[in-house]
Amino acid sequence: MQAGVEIVEVGPRDGFQAITTIIPTDRKIELVQALYCAGVRRIEATSFVSPSALPQLADAAEIVRAANALDGLDAQVLVPTLRHAERALAAGAKHLAFVLSVSERHNRGNVRRSPEESAGQYAEIALLAPANVKLRVNVATAFDCPHDGFVRDDATLALLNRVAVASPRAEIALCDTSGRAGPAHVSRLFNAAMARFPEVERWAFHAHDTYGMAAANVLGAWNANVRVFDGAVAGLGGCPFAPGATGNVATEDLIWMFEGMDVGTGIDLDALVRVARDVTLLPGAQTGGRVRDALGARMRIRPGRPPAPI
Amino acid sequence: MQAGVEIVEVGPRDGFQAITTIIPTDRKIELVQALYCAGVRRIEATSFVSPSALPQLADAAEIVRAANALDGLDAQVLVPTLRHAERALAAGAKHLAFVLSVSERHNRGNVRRSPEESAGQYAEIALLAPANVKLRVNVATAFDCPHDGFVRDDATLALLNRVAVASPRAEIALCDTSGRAGPAHVSRLFNAAMARFPEVERWAFHAHDTYGMAAANVLGAWNANVRVFDGAVAGLGGCPFAPGATGNVATEDLIWMFEGMDVGTGIDLDALVRVARDVTLLPGAQTGGRVRDALGARMRIRPGRPPAPI
Repeated sequence: MQAGVEIVEVGPRDGFQAITTIIPTDRKIELVQALYCAGVRRIEATSFVSPSALPQLADAAEIVRAANALDGLDAQVLVPTLRHAERALAAGAKHLAFVLSVSERHNRGNVRRSPEESAGQYAEIALLAPANVKLRVNVATAFDCPHDGFVRDDATLALLNRVAVASPRAEIALCDTSGRAGPAHVSRLFNAAMARFPEVERWAFHAHDTYGMAAANVLGAWNANVRVFDGAVAGLGGCPFAPGATGNVATEDLIWMFEGMDVGTGIDLDALVRVARDVTLLPGAQTGGRVRDALGARMRIRPGRPPAPI
Repeated sequence: MQAGVEIVEVGPRDGFQAITTIIPTDRKIELVQALYCAGVRRIEATSFVSPSALPQLADAAEIVRAANALDGLDAQVLVPTLRHAERALAAGAKHLAFVLSVSERHNRGNVRRSPEESAGQYAEIALLAPANVKLRVNVATAFDCPHDGFVRDDATLALLNRVAVASPRAEIALCDTSGRAGPAHVSRLFNAAMARFPEVERWAFHAHDTYGMAAANVLGAWNANVRVFDGAVAGLGGCPFAPGATGNVATEDLIWMFEGMDVGTGIDLDALVRVARDVTLLPGAQTGGRVRDALGARMRIRPGRPPAPI
């Protein structure tokens, strides 16, 4: 098996935030634990946001506490502003994922600020965060904006410049918020960003499957040497500020794909599929992906490798 | 725009054969005409098989007549045996697509013959077919068998050797019947086949999206210089002899992907999506793909290119 990839399970944040029916906190914690037991070792567990804007995530502090109790789990939490980053740190978060958008309109819809103002907030967070707190930046609409369409590479690179200057130690995730990127676009932008910012050590890709391109786009990112990939169990997801942007790539589809490429993820696919089936039962869950149902059919044969000798 | 790809629309054959409710012949012909009007110039229009085994395709001769009346349409028909190839030629078919499986079990389930016997039948068809009749060979289970799992490259290459010897002028399609191939597997097998059989001028890839890998696998084939791709409008499909093998890749998803790569298909995506929506209304149709629904949402912005200047 080749050196593996790191899968970041974002269902408990990106998935749950799209569900309006409040999920009991205990149920959320059970899901985080079930993911952990399936071998997931990095989870975007929640988001610190305004409870009035997203009541679903009002229990963020409790989720952080429960996630931190799991040995070896890298639990990141999404923070859209400096104030919420401070709340997350106070709650004991060990990994902050800041989010900002290249698209002015999308960023304003999200946090009522310009992308430049958000980049400034991020720079303050990078100064504020203790050295033992990990940092990630989710660059939304890096390829395409749900409202305004195609995003030029130079616009994304210009914002990345501000982000990279603020903290080269942070991991940077380029997010295909609308799902309208294509694999050549994904490869091209990652290649350009990696060449322009060699000081950034880790890059990640966040795919949506809205147009059925997630697997191809993940391959495009893989081909550009990206080794960190976001997925949401059962394809949970969407974005409340990106109309039509249903469909985070299903984590089980990602794992299936990488297993077929003989690339390790550390996650037990069968166990994850069982978790995914439970997730589909959550009231209000919008799910996606194909592997969960395909594996529920008659055959349980793994791809890409010969049957074991008798 | 780069040099384009050729899309082979297989919905009227691979899609319809999976539908048990008989579709009126006029409705089928309307669909072929609608696909033609959307710019499709190659269609697997029907199959000559035993009417008792597949009553849905008992009207093959009428479909051939109607398809041949469309100027510039390359209408291929699937034939699983010599006898049905003779029937197809007698009905005026101008393009025969022979099908055989690498997997013994799959081939026997399909035509009650060993793959070697089927290869022998194909050799006879290649001798029989007039020079102005085009030939294609669909190599089913080239990557994986729905019953027996992983198919070794050398097994597929051995069968390809028999096929290539019989007629180097034929196009050869490698088919991911179960949808369990991965992109690296697809690239590897096409690279090996092309290197081994340089006399074969045209290779094609037939993807199923059962595990969500169709777009990635198409990219894998594209990267191996394949330029002919099968798709089924609305993701119609499945295989009556491949349990769980629902999900031909949707033609509209293929076109979306290639448009994003700036690769021409000659097909009008908007027009094709309208046809796809009609197809979903056929009683008994099993559909798939994402682009049809995604484009039905609020946004109608094309991927991979800047908005037109004002």
